Amino acid sequence: MALDLTAQIALLRNVATRLRIDSIRATTAAGSGHPSTCCSAADIAAALFFAEMRFDPQRPEDPDNDRFVLSKGHAAPLLYAAWAEAGAFPREDLLRLRELGSDLEGHPTPRLPFVDVATGSLGQGVGAAVGIALNARRTGSAYRTYVLIGDGESAEGSVWEAAAVAAHYELGSLCGITDVNALGQSGETAWGHDLQPLRRRWEAFGWNTILVDGHDISDLLGAFEAARRVTDRPTMILARTVKGKGVSFVEGKGGWHGRPLKKDEEALALAELEAQFVPGPGEDEAAASIAAPPRTSAWVEPASGAEIAPPAYAPDASIATREAYGTALVKLGTVDPRVVVLDADVKNSTFSDKFEKVFPQRFFQHFIAEQAMLGVAMGLASRGAIAFPSTFAAFFTRAYDFIRMAAISGLNVKMTGSHAGVSIGEDGPSQMGLEDLAMMRTQPNIAVLYPCDAVSTERLVAGMAYHPGPVYLRTSRPKTPVIYGNEESFPIGGCKVLRRSENDVATVIAAGVTLFEALKAYEQLEQAGIAIRVIDLYSIQPIDGAALRQAAAETNGRLITVEDHYAGGGIGDAVAAATTGVASVQKLAVREIPRSGKPDELLDRFGISASHIVTAVKG
Amino acid sequence: MALDLTAQIALLRNVATRLRIDSIRATTAAGSGHPSTCCSAADIAAALFFAEMRFDPQRPEDPDNDRFVLSKGHAAPLLYAAWAEAGAFPREDLLRLRELGSDLEGHPTPRLPFVDVATGSLGQGVGAAVGIALNARRTGSAYRTYVLIGDGESAEGSVWEAAAVAAHYELGSLCGITDVNALGQSGETAWGHDLQPLRRRWEAFGWNTILVDGHDISDLLGAFEAARRVTDRPTMILARTVKGKGVSFVEGKGGWHGRPLKKDEEALALAELEAQFVPGPGEDEAAASIAAPPRTSAWVEPASGAEIAPPAYAPDASIATREAYGTALVKLGTVDPRVVVLDADVKNSTFSDKFEKVFPQRFFQHFIAEQAMLGVAMGLASRGAIAFPSTFAAFFTRAYDFIRMAAISGLNVKMTGSHAGVSIGEDGPSQMGLEDLAMMRTQPNIAVLYPCDAVSTERLVAGMAYHPGPVYLRTSRPKTPVIYGNEESFPIGGCKVLRRSENDVATVIAAGVTLFEALKAYEQLEQAGIAIRVIDLYSIQPIDGAALRQAAAETNGRLITVEDHYAGGGIGDAVAAATTGVASVQKLAVREIPRSGKPDELLDRFGISASHIVTAVKG
Repeated sequence: MALDLTAQIALLRNVATRLRIDSIRATTAAGSGHPSTCCSAADIAAALFFAEMRFDPQRPEDPDNDRFVLSKGHAAPLLYAAWAEAGAFPREDLLRLRELGSDLEGHPTPRLPFVDVATGSLGQGVGAAVGIALNARRTGSAYRTYVLIGDGESAEGSVWEAAAVAAHYELGSLCGITDVNALGQSGETAWGHDLQPLRRRWEAFGWNTILVDGHDISDLLGAFEAARRVTDRPTMILARTVKGKGVSFVEGKGGWHGRPLKKDEEALALAELEAQFVPGPGEDEAAASIAAPPRTSAWVEPASGAEIAPPAYAPDASIATREAYGTALVKLGTVDPRVVVLDADVKNSTFSDKFEKVFPQRFFQHFIAEQAMLGVAMGLASRGAIAFPSTFAAFFTRAYDFIRMAAISGLNVKMTGSHAGVSIGEDGPSQMGLEDLAMMRTQPNIAVLYPCDAVSTERLVAGMAYHPGPVYLRTSRPKTPVIYGNEESFPIGGCKVLRRSENDVATVIAAGVTLFEALKAYEQLEQAGIAIRVIDLYSIQPIDGAALRQAAAETNGRLITVEDHYAGGGIGDAVAAATTGVASVQKLAVREIPRSGKPDELLDRFGISASHIVTAVKG
Repeated sequence: MALDLTAQIALLRNVATRLRIDSIRATTAAGSGHPSTCCSAADIAAALFFAEMRFDPQRPEDPDNDRFVLSKGHAAPLLYAAWAEAGAFPREDLLRLRELGSDLEGHPTPRLPFVDVATGSLGQGVGAAVGIALNARRTGSAYRTYVLIGDGESAEGSVWEAAAVAAHYELGSLCGITDVNALGQSGETAWGHDLQPLRRRWEAFGWNTILVDGHDISDLLGAFEAARRVTDRPTMILARTVKGKGVSFVEGKGGWHGRPLKKDEEALALAELEAQFVPGPGEDEAAASIAAPPRTSAWVEPASGAEIAPPAYAPDASIATREAYGTALVKLGTVDPRVVVLDADVKNSTFSDKFEKVFPQRFFQHFIAEQAMLGVAMGLASRGAIAFPSTFAAFFTRAYDFIRMAAISGLNVKMTGSHAGVSIGEDGPSQMGLEDLAMMRTQPNIAVLYPCDAVSTERLVAGMAYHPGPVYLRTSRPKTPVIYGNEESFPIGGCKVLRRSENDVATVIAAGVTLFEALKAYEQLEQAGIAIRVIDLYSIQPIDGAALRQAAAETNGRLITVEDHYAGGGIGDAVAAATTGVASVQKLAVREIPRSGKPDELLDRFGISASHIVTAVKG
């Protein structure tokens, strides 16, 4: 549809007014929500959705659609109103905002087909948008990626990590818009309405910047067009806005964050807004004005994983599981072009550099910025990639809020944490992942895997790629012997009973490095005439409860868990939960802040070596 | 001691050479470590410790000493060598680096009296230094704070969060030095040796910057002096350096990160370094050249907490625990000047704004930057403050790596997370803290508290202030009735048995909002003639194992836990661990990603309402 500029601006002004009306009506109906933050961004959303972006509102999954991320997730009603205006669903649905039966939640989640990543934890949208923009390179599409952020959330460091990565990758297809309404939740932002500090920051981080009046449609259209012409770096449009714009008694006032209008206030506001409609094209013409995406991508994602080369280890080999992870990534990447690998300057420790050497185009470097790595992984995964970010197990704590949001989003983010536990030795506690199992396992939809040898690592890396949703794999620093045959399979949710007799007095359950302590203990006890069962719990979540309960039933109800992890929330707790009422679980785990030392010394000092297992069995 | 500039430079050059020698000898003796990163920063350390800083090496705890934070913690051997050179301990001890019996760990921890906060997780030092610098205002001291960071770690967003806070508070007493050696762990940094991108960033974040040759002592001394003259904002000295400086075959080469010199390499290196000594003052004169701190502070920390005003709630009151938290902070702040409160733009939701209104000088705003809030809290706590950072429970995940390091450091960081669980209702999963208990409880030295009413909240806030080390308190969004008398006490590690009879068929263990579901279930079951025991588990870690085991023994070994938290790692797991072998624990917890809805609907939908408890008891 060809409208002249005057008609187009009139159309967009009216769209913005309807978006404000819808946002207010929805939040008043819900009795909660953030109408004032919707009003500040309504003109931006109108210009973006109904003039700038090229997409098919009926097919939000279209691989060539321009993409939009609402980083300031509390403006969800505005997002929903825009998609309703675009015809994606009936406008009446907006009045079911925040109801239990509605997918129009308080903050956006991918339950909605037009939401790629859940937002609402501020500062995460830019990272996701960077991942989505990088995905266009992977699939060869010309789609552009837009992200709307708040000025308040620009204080989050994660924004600047992502900004740096976007500039590093020269993402000209990425365009951000900052809704500078000057008001945070509890007061004015650090900068108020002064756009210059934000301009200086974005430019210092390598972005093109454009300053506009965020309520001037013509200004906004010009900025989007100018942004499209800058192809060697991302653009941030800094839009000066007024929180609550369009409703006189809310405009620019404190105390309106996260507060819906009461019924009488709503009536006043709607009357004011109705009066703001201008003569111009009608409501139907808004949706019709959306341009379809050009067919640029011939990309078809493979339906499922092809056959992966099996492990090929000599029976007497000794290989760190972290190294087997790198080998597995290469095999996986060879058969599946969806596989991408992400690093934060530890690729030579996690061994993800093996993948980089073979597939440099599918390897993304974030430098020392774990939140950016996770955010980008989320964005890539949201558009069809199978994303493998890896770093030290300890440093996933840096990105835990992103991991939490990846779980809420149910994305195919496949995390691998190396250097788990005190067995890393001399580097000391800051480098020891001792809470990673707990932080991953508490997320109900994250699978948690922990191989002890190279064969199980390779099998589990392949398994995690095709397990739906987020997965965490824990690898170890020390070399460990290969104990499994190359043909062995390791279904997620299973375990391996490695030692078993009719006379077992107890079952020792271990994983990773402690499995070898358990096997040592088995031999020492055998010489003393004591038989134990030994289980390799390579899958901690889901857990093989039936096998554990059977072992308990056959070994006097005595289970001893041993883990290179803190005592809370890890293997011991997982086993206890799976066997409650049928077993007594003695946990051998790290129970204090550890310190530097040699790996074997530390296993012993912190109570998880073979000798401690022997004592526990005898005790 | 008055040396002329020529003599002083000769002295410092020789100090730097000794620091390099010591760093290399220590890491070679240890067989691991990062000598090349020590060498790049050796001249900086020499100038800082032996010319710029005013401190008493024999009394590192002196409240007027200038402070130093080694953000690039892997340069620990350099830090240790500097303190040995200053006479704090015998130089020979350096050769026990990284041994189990030595406090000279792989990365610095506060086991050493001259280390305020543990470092080694990159990007955390600036936040701690900001807190330490703010502490000087609290105590009225004129000490200055220095922080040495790596160029690589400047990619961490947490650095920029802290940078913004430092500028906001106009911390002229804070001076950073970036060791721009251009090499990260796995490759070149994003900027190599170009100082301009870093300069632009620091200036955009409001800092004064000075560019120097990091191996030119005269340049460094001038920069420190210039920094001292800028009193209205912090200064970042960007020092161009060479990784491995002083050892020709290491200088500027890749592949030397985290790699000690072998014995033969060490011999070559030491020979090269020995040749770099220049004529000048001798070794003894270095320590003697350190200036004592001027006596500026009359501050004496109070020995312990004074009497805090008791709770004063009417028995029929209904108050959210988050609001009682704010009330408690004010009472605490009134009697103890060490108490400081930190926010990240949610003070009106957590109710920490009550404290701000009374004690604005002890209230610190970080805007939406949770990592900065925790880092600053760590810095303040390391210098004697009792620091209370609070935000939504969910958003502590953003700062989990800082929390982990606060635990390693054993600091008095007293965290409170509001808006826990699905009971927040309509805002949806992004705002619901459902993993906070697991992430806190897995840290072995974090106490985890969860009050259900206003009285217990006030008592526990007072208790957490004086409990040694980090503590986490979980508050709730909904109002809850006051069920305890104002005189009731709540020792950390205890619990309350609220309902008890001889005929109890099971024990229901709850905390926070679910405690009221348990009490409702009690009444419903009572009408059906079924008696249950009800326990308020307000202290989850430490946990009252004896009371729980007794309850199990008296109620058929049947324990039912109910928690507004994910199933893994929370109350259920804590109870199961404390009662293994003597009880069967049925966990009622949130077992899937939740969604928006009304609080009561969600408690029911996700299996933690009274009706689910009734079913569990009957089942």
